[in-house]
Amino acid sequence: MKHAVVMQTDFGVENISVSTMRGVCRQVSEDLDIFDSTHAVRPFDVLNASDSLVYTIPFWPEGTVFVSVVDPGVGTSRRSCVARLKNGSFVVTPDNGTLTYVVEQLGVDRVREIDESVNRYPTTRNIHIFHGRDVYAYCAARLAAGVIDFEGVGPEYPVSEIVMAPYVHPEAKGGVLTGMINEAPEHFGLTGTNIPFSWLAENGMNYGDMVHISILHNRDVVLYKTVPLVKSFGYTEKGTVLVISSETGTVMIAKNQGNLVLDYQLDFGPDWTFSITKA
Amino acid sequence: MKHAVVMQTDFGVENISVSTMRGVCRQVSEDLDIFDSTHAVRPFDVLNASDSLVYTIPFWPEGTVFVSVVDPGVGTSRRSCVARLKNGSFVVTPDNGTLTYVVEQLGVDRVREIDESVNRYPTTRNIHIFHGRDVYAYCAARLAAGVIDFEGVGPEYPVSEIVMAPYVHPEAKGGVLTGMINEAPEHFGLTGTNIPFSWLAENGMNYGDMVHISILHNRDVVLYKTVPLVKSFGYTEKGTVLVISSETGTVMIAKNQGNLVLDYQLDFGPDWTFSITKA
Amino acid sequence: MKHAVVMQTDFGVENISVSTMRGVCRQVSEDLDIFDSTHAVRPFDVLNASDSLVYTIPFWPEGTVFVSVVDPGVGTSRRSCVARLKNGSFVVTPDNGTLTYVVEQLGVDRVREIDESVNRYPTTRNIHIFHGRDVYAYCAARLAAGVIDFEGVGPEYPVSEIVMAPYVHPEAKGGVLTGMINEAPEHFGLTGTNIPFSWLAENGMNYGDMVHISILHNRDVVLYKTVPLVKSFGYTEKGTVLVISSETGTVMIAKNQGNLVLDYQLDFGPDWTFSITKA
Repeated sequence: MKHAVVMQTDFGVENISVSTMRGVCRQVSEDLDIFDSTHAVRPFDVLNASDSLVYTIPFWPEGTVFVSVVDPGVGTSRRSCVARLKNGSFVVTPDNGTLTYVVEQLGVDRVREIDESVNRYPTTRNIHIFHGRDVYAYCAARLAAGVIDFEGVGPEYPVSEIVMAPYVHPEAKGGVLTGMINEAPEHFGLTGTNIPFSWLAENGMNYGDMVHISILHNRDVVLYKTVPLVKSFGYTEKGTVLVISSETGTVMIAKNQGNLVLDYQLDFGPDWTFSITKA
Repeated sequence: MKHAVVMQTDFGVENISVSTMRGVCRQVSEDLDIFDSTHAVRPFDVLNASDSLVYTIPFWPEGTVFVSVVDPGVGTSRRSCVARLKNGSFVVTPDNGTLTYVVEQLGVDRVREIDESVNRYPTTRNIHIFHGRDVYAYCAARLAAGVIDFEGVGPEYPVSEIVMAPYVHPEAKGGVLTGMINEAPEHFGLTGTNIPFSWLAENGMNYGDMVHISILHNRDVVLYKTVPLVKSFGYTEKGTVLVISSETGTVMIAKNQGNLVLDYQLDFGPDWTFSITKA
Repeated sequence: MKHAVVMQTDFGVENISVSTMRGVCRQVSEDLDIFDSTHAVRPFDVLNASDSLVYTIPFWPEGTVFVSVVDPGVGTSRRSCVARLKNGSFVVTPDNGTLTYVVEQLGVDRVREIDESVNRYPTTRNIHIFHGRDVYAYCAARLAAGVIDFEGVGPEYPVSEIVMAPYVHPEAKGGVLTGMINEAPEHFGLTGTNIPFSWLAENGMNYGDMVHISILHNRDVVLYKTVPLVKSFGYTEKGTVLVISSETGTVMIAKNQGNLVLDYQLDFGPDWTFSITKA
């Protein structure tokens, strides 16, 4: 049995490049199952790529090979690597910050730099390499199909050398929790943070309580409100801004049957911070 | 041989949640073939979900397991169910109106409520269940892979108890046909109705005839026009509004090489009604 | 082993019709692997369809069956065909110009018209055929699954009769290279041309040189600029317009960390021409 290859990129859902990545995988082995995770990672946003990985990886079988192509530094000296996770799965990616949350939340066991003299698609079509296709997809397919084992990827380097991208770590200080907005999809209009929902109760905030929340873009207050902390939308009236738990157990802010993201033109990333305290 | 799992949601094409639904299916069995139907069902629109199901199901092999996640009432008391269709395929869905057209047009043989004590993904990651992933995809995969048979889904309940969503039924009265607009995709700019095309001839409207058509949004007339009833676009000049048969044999209104949806800002659903009569 | 079916259409990424194409393939054989290439071909644009095919085909295994459904003349007398390429793969498509670049760049070995009396989905659902599903996907699946061989497609006709769409051929004359803009994706904001990058050096333009470039829409100059010819983005400052090689070895124009397409409202096709000469 061969492991699946699961791909994420920032190429957009209309892009055709991913098709050539699939084709290259199939050239390695026509038995490989190839899946898309998402191609809507925010362009060049390695933290968003990292967030997508830690969101999806835990739900796939052990040994699955994930490919992530978000590569603002393509053509520069960043390493191309394969990380073996503590759960036995693999991530094939430029080592450019994409592994940040993978290291912290899932755990990386070992990491190897891809040896392009072996694990690069031997195209003669032209010399203009597309790393996502010719290095990442190709190497991932070889690993998933058992053409190479993890040792065959290339030379190992210390996990401590993996590039970590800076971000706003969640903190609890004097009953005030602060963190970062890390998703703000327009489609459903809600925003996720990186503050563990369990911290609320540990800091005296329980279901039914009113809480003060604020969202800042850099130093500007975009939203400041006193809202209910609830178990689900049904506990509030239509149009109410509220705090609930996300499906991954983090603090989420939403508007019942409304679109908070459009209302306040919210976005995400280290520039967007959030704080919450008991009212 | 295992049956395929085919998924539709209202999550949008950029969403990453579907990736975890695929992963959960693969955890049940790495032999499962998993396909997307569409992830662009109108958010929270169970009738649109129903329409998508009856559009696609007849073209897949008997025994295929369809998953539909359009769930405005998630967290409330709606049942989670698996319907076995007269053609031998299955639909796994919240029982919230999504099965309306499936019952009427394809026929539901039997229906069972999902027993979550058995058919729920045993994640220990957190307690915040995502029904699309942890109940619907997981149960569908178990059924498709033969881990459970239909009896293994959970307790049966009467097909007559399936929740039917209200909609505007097509009618013929005194030579006037009325019905509902049920699709209005901007991409190609045409609009479909739920009036069988065969009713036109039965009511004296034949190819080459001129017909009066009107589209109403609630009580407002959005379009009233006398247009040709034709076999295909080629019978009219560029820019002509016309009536043709859709690929599923219903009455469709379109503009030759134009975009009727953008021209008149058309939309679809029970608020959007249509009538046609001979000129 | 069965060959994969790889689909491209102009239906848009939100369309559900592709799901019925997949279903029909699975009815032919549940062992078939079915992939999407892109569903974002510009509507009705057969040259764009052709460009997508020659971009992706070389990266898939020999014998892969590609389906292309971009069919502005559906219902007219254009032939439906299967082309066997010099590399052993197949393209199933309306013969309407979609094969233009395939013939010129990849080479077509032989071509056969699809015999719809054999290779058309025998649906009894209604008589309103959807060619993409009922002829192209169905015939492609039969070929990929080995139900028919190439001879089983239908009668052969001369490759010289394949419909070729007119376009602006790249030319070098007196040190000035001219060609066509053939892609201008908003997502990354760069534009591709059909001028081979190798022609630059042959005409005295080398890395580090300054070059005059112009983009015309019909007869209107949309952009005229003197810009650097570089190996990669890193050689210029943020905001610089530059000329580089695309991943397929053609001349590309881009703006370092900017979006040239939005800045100048660029588009692509034979109406959009490009020229470059040494400064």
